[in-house]
Amino acid sequence: MKNQTTYHYQVATQNVDFTYRATIDSLGNYILNTAGIDAQGKGFGVDALSPQNLTWVLSKLVFEVDSRPEQFTEFDLTTWVNQNTRLVSTRNFTLSDKDGKMFIRALSQWCMLDYVRRVPVNLETIEELYNPYICEALSPCEQPKRLRPIEPEVVKEHIVVYSDIDFNCHMNTMRYIGLMVDMLDIELLKQNCPFRLDVHFMNECVLGQKLTVGMQTVDETTLFEITREDGVVACRASFEWK
Amino acid sequence: MKNQTTYHYQVATQNVDFTYRATIDSLGNYILNTAGIDAQGKGFGVDALSPQNLTWVLSKLVFEVDSRPEQFTEFDLTTWVNQNTRLVSTRNFTLSDKDGKMFIRALSQWCMLDYVRRVPVNLETIEELYNPYICEALSPCEQPKRLRPIEPEVVKEHIVVYSDIDFNCHMNTMRYIGLMVDMLDIELLKQNCPFRLDVHFMNECVLGQKLTVGMQTVDETTLFEITREDGVVACRASFEWK
Repeated sequence: MKNQTTYHYQVATQNVDFTYRATIDSLGNYILNTAGIDAQGKGFGVDALSPQNLTWVLSKLVFEVDSRPEQFTEFDLTTWVNQNTRLVSTRNFTLSDKDGKMFIRALSQWCMLDYVRRVPVNLETIEELYNPYICEALSPCEQPKRLRPIEPEVVKEHIVVYSDIDFNCHMNTMRYIGLMVDMLDIELLKQNCPFRLDVHFMNECVLGQKLTVGMQTVDETTLFEITREDGVVACRASFEWK
Repeated sequence: MKNQTTYHYQVATQNVDFTYRATIDSLGNYILNTAGIDAQGKGFGVDALSPQNLTWVLSKLVFEVDSRPEQFTEFDLTTWVNQNTRLVSTRNFTLSDKDGKMFIRALSQWCMLDYVRRVPVNLETIEELYNPYICEALSPCEQPKRLRPIEPEVVKEHIVVYSDIDFNCHMNTMRYIGLMVDMLDIELLKQNCPFRLDVHFMNECVLGQKLTVGMQTVDETTLFEITREDGVVACRASFEWK
């Protein structure tokens, strides 16, 4: 479909875990890196926005994984933007194997931020750049779920270190997910269980900050909440195991 | 020169730190991933060795960094193997910018391991595969330094988690370096100080193991020693700041 673009990748050795399947982190990286490349290629990436002091900030991420691909698997990653509101850009992704079988569906919601004034900006500001690329195709999975505060049963502390932070001095998006995955029952990863992951990025974390990662299990769902030492919630997430 | 092969890369956004320069981790990853690709392409990679239950294990790494490249910098990474002894394969690397100016030199030493019998194997076992690719070019930096036990002044604990381990269930090479870099004075990274890094990988670490990362500063050198809870030294390193 018009304005859907497909990128081709292969699962590299450094992206697999001990089951020889791509880690959740690395799948997230394929998706987020492709988001950046696609926006840049279409003329509304961070490079095009920065002269106006604007940037994209990831606010929500949904990830439906039927199976994590094995080492050396080649796959097609298709991405498109659709149905944006005035404050939220929705970018969608599907990952399919060489027979066309879709094995991951994902959806991300982005806000545009004026990083000098520190305020969200209406997407109409860039409608000339952005609107020609809006695609009619529906999102491949349901919209982000509501995530409520949790009552943690297991808690782990983490101090934000150099290798956690990005060019912006904030904790890297995928590190939040990494911290949570590291607390999961390893059997869930060993068995390549299908899951739906919802993540809400609520507030940024900076170098040296002490974080508390809380985990709660409710039926077949593992809930997480990452809180900063000043009591502010940085991130909430839910892994629904199928 | 014959048997030297050059690969072309560009520093990606996800590989830079807050100085907009490639992290030490990511530079190590470019080098180690290229080592794997080059060995595979020449017919003596892990894929060719595994039918005989053999694999490559990294034992020492030297890294001379004049300057870490900025985001989007394109560079040539040239690699070759030379001067192997019967038990050690030496692989060399240079990184050069588009004007041909070399900004990183590196050297790695690898043992071949029989992973069923858990013993090192004489390289003559694969001489038909390996020897045609030995290059006469000298290594671009001095051989690995001797690293002695340290008297740590600062100590940090780390439990090996899922995201630290590789397909082999051992802590990933670059994670050792990541743990050490996270303890460095951030000013050294902010100022893009030139350095020589020597790392000796001595014993493996596995999931759940508690590690102690010790750091000692002697003049312009920062020394590290990573010890497992059973008292075995896993890794020693030295950063010499120029």
